[in-house]
Amino acid sequence: MPKTLIKVDINKPAEKQDMLPHNRWHPDIPFVASVNPGEDFRIECLDWTGGQIVDDNDATDMRDVDLTKVHYLSGPVEIAGADPGDLLVVDILDIGAFQESEWGFTGIFARENGGGFLVDHYPEARKACWDFHGIYATSRHVPGVRIHGMSHPGLIGCLPSRELLNEWNAREAELIATDPNRIPPLAAPPYADTALLGHMPPQQAKEAAKVGARTVPPREHGGNVDIKNLTRGSRIYFPVYVEGGGLSVGDLHFSQGDGEITFCGAIEMAGWIDLHVDLIKGGMEKYGIKNPIFKTGTSGPNYNDFLVFEGISVDERGKQYYLDAHVAYRQAALNAIEYLKKFGYSGEQAYVILGTAPVEGRISGIVDIPNACATLYIPTEIFEFNIMPDSAGPRVLVDRAVELAKPT
Amino acid sequence: MPKTLIKVDINKPAEKQDMLPHNRWHPDIPFVASVNPGEDFRIECLDWTGGQIVDDNDATDMRDVDLTKVHYLSGPVEIAGADPGDLLVVDILDIGAFQESEWGFTGIFARENGGGFLVDHYPEARKACWDFHGIYATSRHVPGVRIHGMSHPGLIGCLPSRELLNEWNAREAELIATDPNRIPPLAAPPYADTALLGHMPPQQAKEAAKVGARTVPPREHGGNVDIKNLTRGSRIYFPVYVEGGGLSVGDLHFSQGDGEITFCGAIEMAGWIDLHVDLIKGGMEKYGIKNPIFKTGTSGPNYNDFLVFEGISVDERGKQYYLDAHVAYRQAALNAIEYLKKFGYSGEQAYVILGTAPVEGRISGIVDIPNACATLYIPTEIFEFNIMPDSAGPRVLVDRAVELAKPT
Amino acid sequence: MPKTLIKVDINKPAEKQDMLPHNRWHPDIPFVASVNPGEDFRIECLDWTGGQIVDDNDATDMRDVDLTKVHYLSGPVEIAGADPGDLLVVDILDIGAFQESEWGFTGIFARENGGGFLVDHYPEARKACWDFHGIYATSRHVPGVRIHGMSHPGLIGCLPSRELLNEWNAREAELIATDPNRIPPLAAPPYADTALLGHMPPQQAKEAAKVGARTVPPREHGGNVDIKNLTRGSRIYFPVYVEGGGLSVGDLHFSQGDGEITFCGAIEMAGWIDLHVDLIKGGMEKYGIKNPIFKTGTSGPNYNDFLVFEGISVDERGKQYYLDAHVAYRQAALNAIEYLKKFGYSGEQAYVILGTAPVEGRISGIVDIPNACATLYIPTEIFEFNIMPDSAGPRVLVDRAVELAKPT
Amino acid sequence: MPKTLIKVDINKPAEKQDMLPHNRWHPDIPFVASVNPGEDFRIECLDWTGGQIVDDNDATDMRDVDLTKVHYLSGPVEIAGADPGDLLVVDILDIGAFQESEWGFTGIFARENGGGFLVDHYPEARKACWDFHGIYATSRHVPGVRIHGMSHPGLIGCLPSRELLNEWNAREAELIATDPNRIPPLAAPPYADTALLGHMPPQQAKEAAKVGARTVPPREHGGNVDIKNLTRGSRIYFPVYVEGGGLSVGDLHFSQGDGEITFCGAIEMAGWIDLHVDLIKGGMEKYGIKNPIFKTGTSGPNYNDFLVFEGISVDERGKQYYLDAHVAYRQAALNAIEYLKKFGYSGEQAYVILGTAPVEGRISGIVDIPNACATLYIPTEIFEFNIMPDSAGPRVLVDRAVELAKPT
Repeated sequence: MPKTLIKVDINKPAEKQDMLPHNRWHPDIPFVASVNPGEDFRIECLDWTGGQIVDDNDATDMRDVDLTKVHYLSGPVEIAGADPGDLLVVDILDIGAFQESEWGFTGIFARENGGGFLVDHYPEARKACWDFHGIYATSRHVPGVRIHGMSHPGLIGCLPSRELLNEWNAREAELIATDPNRIPPLAAPPYADTALLGHMPPQQAKEAAKVGARTVPPREHGGNVDIKNLTRGSRIYFPVYVEGGGLSVGDLHFSQGDGEITFCGAIEMAGWIDLHVDLIKGGMEKYGIKNPIFKTGTSGPNYNDFLVFEGISVDERGKQYYLDAHVAYRQAALNAIEYLKKFGYSGEQAYVILGTAPVEGRISGIVDIPNACATLYIPTEIFEFNIMPDSAGPRVLVDRAVELAKPT
Repeated sequence: MPKTLIKVDINKPAEKQDMLPHNRWHPDIPFVASVNPGEDFRIECLDWTGGQIVDDNDATDMRDVDLTKVHYLSGPVEIAGADPGDLLVVDILDIGAFQESEWGFTGIFARENGGGFLVDHYPEARKACWDFHGIYATSRHVPGVRIHGMSHPGLIGCLPSRELLNEWNAREAELIATDPNRIPPLAAPPYADTALLGHMPPQQAKEAAKVGARTVPPREHGGNVDIKNLTRGSRIYFPVYVEGGGLSVGDLHFSQGDGEITFCGAIEMAGWIDLHVDLIKGGMEKYGIKNPIFKTGTSGPNYNDFLVFEGISVDERGKQYYLDAHVAYRQAALNAIEYLKKFGYSGEQAYVILGTAPVEGRISGIVDIPNACATLYIPTEIFEFNIMPDSAGPRVLVDRAVELAKPT
Repeated sequence: MPKTLIKVDINKPAEKQDMLPHNRWHPDIPFVASVNPGEDFRIECLDWTGGQIVDDNDATDMRDVDLTKVHYLSGPVEIAGADPGDLLVVDILDIGAFQESEWGFTGIFARENGGGFLVDHYPEARKACWDFHGIYATSRHVPGVRIHGMSHPGLIGCLPSRELLNEWNAREAELIATDPNRIPPLAAPPYADTALLGHMPPQQAKEAAKVGARTVPPREHGGNVDIKNLTRGSRIYFPVYVEGGGLSVGDLHFSQGDGEITFCGAIEMAGWIDLHVDLIKGGMEKYGIKNPIFKTGTSGPNYNDFLVFEGISVDERGKQYYLDAHVAYRQAALNAIEYLKKFGYSGEQAYVILGTAPVEGRISGIVDIPNACATLYIPTEIFEFNIMPDSAGPRVLVDRAVELAKPT
Repeated sequence: MPKTLIKVDINKPAEKQDMLPHNRWHPDIPFVASVNPGEDFRIECLDWTGGQIVDDNDATDMRDVDLTKVHYLSGPVEIAGADPGDLLVVDILDIGAFQESEWGFTGIFARENGGGFLVDHYPEARKACWDFHGIYATSRHVPGVRIHGMSHPGLIGCLPSRELLNEWNAREAELIATDPNRIPPLAAPPYADTALLGHMPPQQAKEAAKVGARTVPPREHGGNVDIKNLTRGSRIYFPVYVEGGGLSVGDLHFSQGDGEITFCGAIEMAGWIDLHVDLIKGGMEKYGIKNPIFKTGTSGPNYNDFLVFEGISVDERGKQYYLDAHVAYRQAALNAIEYLKKFGYSGEQAYVILGTAPVEGRISGIVDIPNACATLYIPTEIFEFNIMPDSAGPRVLVDRAVELAKPT
């Protein structure tokens, strides 16, 4: 095992961890550890809610989760010799849950909490808990599926420079200003009250908290990209913006579908990630890199049989949109859910399956006015029964009495 | 070889073909042939421009293409016993170019002609011609790549019912009305002058031409979905809207990337497609089907090594958009182009590579406000040289003197 | 389409072909065509029996096939500039049946004719005819399977040098001499009566026929390797032994399992193959090459779900052999056949499935005295029903009334 | 984490373990734990030598290893309700090294110790030590390769019945009797001196030791099958011969090539394996099962680019064998080694690469008298440099100064 750079204690609240996580992005967050290019190391991570969600049959915790207190990131780690303009090469060597905590959760968020991709259809909080069986996850709340997960960090990236941070804040503020009272909001602005800035001295942290970028969106440095393919064996090339790089990671997912559509849509877990780092000096300029790029690896699951649902940019009320891939993907998801309901799943269960299984979401057509065409690929092998259409029609093999957890 | 239901002569203009193609969707287009469920058959197709584009080094034809005279569809074919509400099961058995015409073309459309996904960056007409070598295509206009194509019909689907046609026309007219003078337009309304309605009697055709839906966008029946995965071995389940189904097909692609981003973005070809059909009676209701669904097959290319580019919904001028997957995918494409330029490609060449190679376009994150995250997967094996980043930086191995064809 | 270097007429006997095939290996067979490195070209081929087998329900032709008159090879083709010691680089671009002849056959050979891998169990002649449906083959004699073929040439290689030919004849004669009257024989010695040596002048041919090597076995130059993975997209590196190389090809297979166990075990077909050639000067020495090597390609079928049967080197009568992979693979095959019989197949049908489907035959353990361990991987997706074991036991879904063709 | 049924302490010798392993097969070895069908559980295992080999640069331990004291198996585990004739369904959920012991070893055995597949070429003891980096292994003794392992138990199976044990002993004795003084011997007969029979009472164990079957070969029950594809996600169906089944497992491999050709050819490790068990009552008869069968899973590595070496059954001295797949595979291995030597590897290093990387060994042709054709597939992605042939010839990128460990 590589040396463990950062340890967490899942029985303590995030704020009490020895490692002092951060939940905002700011160039001045002090490094908690340092490695050399060429080194392997392990980083432990809290689950993205820092333990707010428990393994039970009551979704009250999911309904009441405090979203300003999430994404407790482990880091930043200094990479010796990293300078702005370099590319930080990160190999994902392995990822796993803690042995004493081999479970995960998925939530549908309530509208009040931002909801998910299909909030108009599924506005209430729900929870599914998953048990891990080696490479597989099953859920007592979602019968009939066994998912070989493509485990990955939902959130990983380097610290932004001051200039980049300013740019983020400016452009997001401008968007919010177009509809400042919208619920849910258009973006998540800095929010000092719940900001954690790791080992930053209190007075400095107080100032930094006012401008520290929220961790919700992915940005130029990576961040909350939620790309399921950043799994074991992938190699990521991150832009470096500050001296030492400052690599942080968190929000580990046992599995997730493209889009992470229920918002808390992955199978969320606490756990560890093993990384190897290297540097390409001056790589941003050499390769014209603005956002991270990555190379896929050779690890599984290598599902190869998919049932695919199409969606076009006409919404569920018949309204036509112009090349809107968001609308098109939503239609593909809704179409898939209607289909799965024929086999006995509730809409909420089907929604969770799309969020958690390694479904692929594709932008199939983006130029044929006025309809974007999106496709959603479900690996058929996750189901314990045959979900292909045939003349006999669907057989309801799922026990309709089983449901996602609701708030009590 | 299965019987050839529909033959074309690639040396004659579309209007002079014995088969009398159609280039609009309308419920009353007469069937040109009839098959029984369980049958195999071959359909020949013109290229999507009906021969407007030639295999030379002058893109004048591409600049001046008449887009109201495209998508000459072969069909409609009656499937005996098909009734509205059924699912028409179509197996794609094989696809190929004509032996006397083993070439294809890709175009960047001029802004005046609608442009493509990156029209603001590449507003001028360009052309690339491709030679087929069995399963591979190469282009004298795009050195250094050899593409194993995922051949597919760009356009396939059943005739709409009258009600569905009316719905299409209504919703698209409503969209156009929001900005009726826009160039390019928001949608393509019916246009009688160039309508071909197959064997429909002239007087009837004159009326039908006024309302016949243009073939540009994908819609509920399938149509111009441009889904590269509808390749050999895939099985598609189409909704049936009229008695006999009325299956039409055209716009064959030797290869294409997700999104078909240059608009005439695939490697377009004339050729043939072998199909097998079957029916699931009442399948739309049984399975809750609105749009076609399909099952992926076992044919290649099975590329498994990808270099991936991320894009977020902040446009190239730094403007922030709200969860806009269209903007995010555009950024991923622009990022990929900048990268490929470092190896010696022109921007136009790189744009064409993304349009033609079987790149995957994924909606990776769609809920993390305000940024959608899209990813574009390029199979590294299409390049004759190593395109992975390393410390030495990119080696320019592409001859910069070679370029896409321009209009003279 | 590339130029066709060699044409055949499947309605004429092999001896009457304009191309004058050869069915022996000899350094002096005259070239029938010449190509330059870098060229694409097409070669047409008779089926391996030269038309002895017909598409009917009577296996008399299979029982009576004359095995000294087979492997009618198209070639040899001269590659300009090829010298002994070079590597001839051959890309398999595509392979297909003739459009007017989209069918193939598989035979179980009678013991009198050499039999197959399981001759002691299945000593009588049988025949299965297959219809091609694009990438798939089905047989009226083997219900319930649809095979996505990995098409390939069973036989391909360059002419041997005189020295190599002498070495072949010497070593094979030595083996035969250990049991000269064995039936079937240990090897197939030169046999002048039925030798065809292409365009070699008659007097010269008469001498050459006495020593020309039979085409049955694979040897250092490649030859009858029957490697199913030499399919579309693979690149083969052949040793060159004579000036000009002299590439010949024949015995095309629509599909075949590892081992080609029924002997006439592939789905045999007449058809065409498109090749591209290049040279690595002095490559044999540079890379230490004795036998051909090849690189796999990206074409399908990409089956990924296999049911696997183990066999050890203890034969069906309980006799123990020492690390004998032949015996072990035979046990794996017998085990697979017993299994498939539980689903309604006859032993002969199961035997044919193993010969024709792209099953993988692996040498899993070869050092654990005294048992070699071989494994046979059957792609489960070829079956129209579920063949995995479960508590309910196998359901007989195959119509037992359907059988392979027998001799009348 | 599932409950740990069996624990080991890698710092204690095998004989001192609390779990009392067994290293012979006998029907009366007492169960050490019991599980119900449907349960998940973990079993810990010593490395196959029980700690005889250490992580250093001296192969003395490899030379002097005592092969009668190996294969310390963890088990047997009783499966409640298992009866003779049932199939025991075992899912491989996950496999790993101990966190405090993330390393493995590979050995070439000396001729005196039985040698390996190429003992005539590499008769001396050598050792390579490997470091694990998540899913990858690298070795300071074999530069330039990074192997994504297909981890699996080398040895797994149920207890034999008395009848089966007798049959094993009888047939193996008969083989040995054909050449009783052979070095290495033809088979490994029972050897009481070093037999461990778990918790069997001493007096009973003394008798059992005389007949307990050695664990070297695979047999009808599975055993030392060394099948690399029994990896995460595979499902094995084992014949049950005794009441309770008696499942034992050991000899974990981080990675191995087909054939495990250096004998101690895998990357051997101590570690744990997570299993799930179920039963198919009467499954042996229902499905005609004699040897175990298994279903492949969806876990990686999904290498898809292979360089392939052919071998035929003519040995390295030019002697012709009759359809001998053993000889053919040996030639393929020797051909691959010659090739790899051109890139700077020693023969021993190349031999070890073939033993440890997930190379595939195929029986490609087994009926074309007199030559069997075997093929050896090397995944090209394991090398840090390009190993494909080209006109420039091989570049020696491997440091020739680095070598395998030798005995001091």
